Amino acid sequence: MDPNTQLPAVGMIGGGQLARMTHQAAISLGQSLHVLAADESDSAAVVTPRTTVGDWSDAADVLAFAEGKTAVTFDHEHVPQEVLRALEDAGVRIEPGADALLYAQDKQAMRERLSKLDLPMPRWAPVSSVSDVEAFGYPCVLKAATGGYDGKGVWMVDNPTEAQEVLSSGVRLIAEERVPLLREVAVQIARTPSGETRVYPVVETVQRDGICVATIAPARIGEELEAEARRVAETVASELGVTGMLAIELFQTNDGLLINELAMRPHNSGHWTIEGAVTSQFEQHLRAVLDYPLGSADLTAPVVVMANILGGPDGGPRLDERIQKMAAEIPEARLHLYGKAIRPGRKIGHVTVSGADVDSARRSALRAAQWIREGR
Amino acid sequence: MDPNTQLPAVGMIGGGQLARMTHQAAISLGQSLHVLAADESDSAAVVTPRTTVGDWSDAADVLAFAEGKTAVTFDHEHVPQEVLRALEDAGVRIEPGADALLYAQDKQAMRERLSKLDLPMPRWAPVSSVSDVEAFGYPCVLKAATGGYDGKGVWMVDNPTEAQEVLSSGVRLIAEERVPLLREVAVQIARTPSGETRVYPVVETVQRDGICVATIAPARIGEELEAEARRVAETVASELGVTGMLAIELFQTNDGLLINELAMRPHNSGHWTIEGAVTSQFEQHLRAVLDYPLGSADLTAPVVVMANILGGPDGGPRLDERIQKMAAEIPEARLHLYGKAIRPGRKIGHVTVSGADVDSARRSALRAAQWIREGR
Repeated sequence: MDPNTQLPAVGMIGGGQLARMTHQAAISLGQSLHVLAADESDSAAVVTPRTTVGDWSDAADVLAFAEGKTAVTFDHEHVPQEVLRALEDAGVRIEPGADALLYAQDKQAMRERLSKLDLPMPRWAPVSSVSDVEAFGYPCVLKAATGGYDGKGVWMVDNPTEAQEVLSSGVRLIAEERVPLLREVAVQIARTPSGETRVYPVVETVQRDGICVATIAPARIGEELEAEARRVAETVASELGVTGMLAIELFQTNDGLLINELAMRPHNSGHWTIEGAVTSQFEQHLRAVLDYPLGSADLTAPVVVMANILGGPDGGPRLDERIQKMAAEIPEARLHLYGKAIRPGRKIGHVTVSGADVDSARRSALRAAQWIREGR
Repeated sequence: MDPNTQLPAVGMIGGGQLARMTHQAAISLGQSLHVLAADESDSAAVVTPRTTVGDWSDAADVLAFAEGKTAVTFDHEHVPQEVLRALEDAGVRIEPGADALLYAQDKQAMRERLSKLDLPMPRWAPVSSVSDVEAFGYPCVLKAATGGYDGKGVWMVDNPTEAQEVLSSGVRLIAEERVPLLREVAVQIARTPSGETRVYPVVETVQRDGICVATIAPARIGEELEAEARRVAETVASELGVTGMLAIELFQTNDGLLINELAMRPHNSGHWTIEGAVTSQFEQHLRAVLDYPLGSADLTAPVVVMANILGGPDGGPRLDERIQKMAAEIPEARLHLYGKAIRPGRKIGHVTVSGADVDSARRSALRAAQWIREGR
C-alpha cells in the first residue's frame, strides 16, 4: 500500500512489453507499476520510474524487490519454482501462485494435469528415447517441456534420425500428435483470488513459423465452439487455481478444440483488448492480481484485428519516418511500439484496427504493420 | 531525436494530469515523455522516469529542460511570454508557439483577435474603472484577463459596489455580457505545423460552479450547429496558428454559438477521447506537436460520457476500497486516477462510460464518480 495515494503497489517481475503495457494500465488505476528488469534499457524500464535492475532467477534479488509490494506478478514464466516458493515462504503474495504457475512453466506437468481433468488435448506422451518416439508414432511434434516460446523448443519430426537429433540436445521432451488444423484460436480469462472470472471473446490467431502474425476478434467459429472454449477456460482457470490473466491457445480441428498452450499473464493474443474490449487484459490482470472486481470484457467494435510488428531487414527509412508514412495512409490504425531496438524477427510493437468488416480491418492492420517493418 | 529508438524526444512543461495522460499516449508511440514538473510528487512525475524538477517561470530552468528535445509543449498556459520568446530565440521548437499561446493566456488579446476575425462571441469590453463597467452595463461578468481557471478569475457583478470590489484587486479585467444559455459545449481540434487539422465531434459540457462536472459526446445540438462549431474551430486554429490540440468552449444560445474560452493543449472537455475516439486527444497532441500525420477523430461508440471526479469531504472508506465498490457495481466504467492527494474540490480523476443511450451512460458515469468521491 502506497501511503500517499492509499493505493496498492504492484510489482512485476520482467521488464518486457507486457510490463510496459501493464504500466500504462496501472497509471489509469492511480498507480505506477514497480518493475524488476534485467536491464535499465528494457521495454518497461524506460517508461516507469519504479524500476529495479536485478536477476529474476536469483531469490535474493527477487525477495528484495518484493519488499513492501501489495502483490507481485509476472511478465514472463521463467522465474524458477524454488524462487517462487521462497517468495511464498517469505509471505509475499504472488499472483498467480507457484502451484498454478508450474503448469505454465512445464508442458509435461500441464499435459498430465489437464489429462486428469479430461480436457480436450492432442494425444501426447513423455519421451526420452528414440524408441519412445517410435512407440508414440511418426509424424509427431517434439516439444521441450520447459523454456520454449514463439516456435522455439518445438520440432516437427518424421523419422528416427530427426528424433535422435532433437533427443541429443538432452532437454526433457514430450511428443504430441500433429493434428490437422482448421484454425488456431485463443481465449483469455481473468480470475481473481476470490474466484470471480471474466472471459474475453475467443480470437483467431494467424500463425507463421510458430509466431503469431495477427489476431482476429471475435473468432468465426460458431456459438458451439465459442461456448466450448469458454468452458475450457473456466475449467482450467479454476481447477489450476490461476489468478490474473490466463491465455489458452487452442487448435480447431474437425473434432472440435484441443488445448495447445497455457500462459498465465497478459499474452500477445490479448493485445487487441487495449482498444477492442471495454477493459484491456493489462488492466484486468492488475485488477485480478489485486482481487479487485473485474471489468467488462465485452467487445467495443464488431471486429478488432491486431497485427504484430516484427523487426525487418536492416536499412530503409528511419523508424520515425515509417511511423509517419503509416499514419498518413492509415489514420484508423492504433500503434503500440515497445521501445525496443530493431532486430530482424523481434517483436517491436503491434497495431490494432477496429471496424465492421474483417477483411478491411485485417488489410489495414497488416498494411500498417508492414509500413513499420519494411518502411514501404 | 533519441539515438537508441530513432524516435523524437518530446518535452512537456508542467507535471499535472495532462502530462500524465500524455505520457501514457507517448508510450504507445514508442517514446517516454520528458516532463518539467514543479515537484517530484506531481501527477506526471510519479509515472515517468524522464522528470526534471524546475520552475516553469524561470527562463534558465526551461532552457536547460529544452536541451536536446525535438519539440517542447505544455500541460498548462502559465509559462510567461518572455520565457516562451527566450525558448524561440534559442532555436527551441515550441508547439504551440508564443504568438499563438498568447491568445490562450490573455483573454483580452483573445477577444480582440477573434473580434477582428468576426467570430461569434458575447459582447465584451476591456474595463479598468467602475465607470467603464457602468458604461458596459449591468448585469455582466468580469473576468481576469490572465490567470483564471475552473471558475477562478470570474465574477458575476450586478452593481457598482460589486464591480468596485473586483476592480480593487488590481488585476486587468474584461467585461462580458451574461448570455442566456441553452447549453455549454466544447469542440477539440488538432492542427499540425504543416496545417493538417482533425476536428473531434462537439461535446456538451455540464458545468457546476464554473467547474466541468461531465461531458456528453456527441453533443445533441443538431447538424447545423455542429457544422458551425467545426467552422469556428478550423478558423481559430488556422488564423491563430495553433499547433497541437486546441479546445474551444462555447455557449449555445437561442442565437447560435458564442466562443467562451480557448485552451491550447489537451483539455478536460476532451478526456472522453481516450476511449471514445479512435485517437485520443493526448496521442493527437503528440502527433500534432511532432508534425506527424493526425489520427482518426471518429467516435468509437454512439455515446460517450465522461464524469470528473472531485475530491470529496475527509473521512469515509480508503480510496482503494472506493475503487473496489465502484468496480463491483459498474464493470463498464473506465477509471482514470491522477495519483493526486485528495483535497475537497480538487480534480483527482475522471471516469468514462461508452454506450448506446445517453441517460444510462450518464447515470453510470456519474454514479461511478460518486463512488470515488464519496465512498458510497
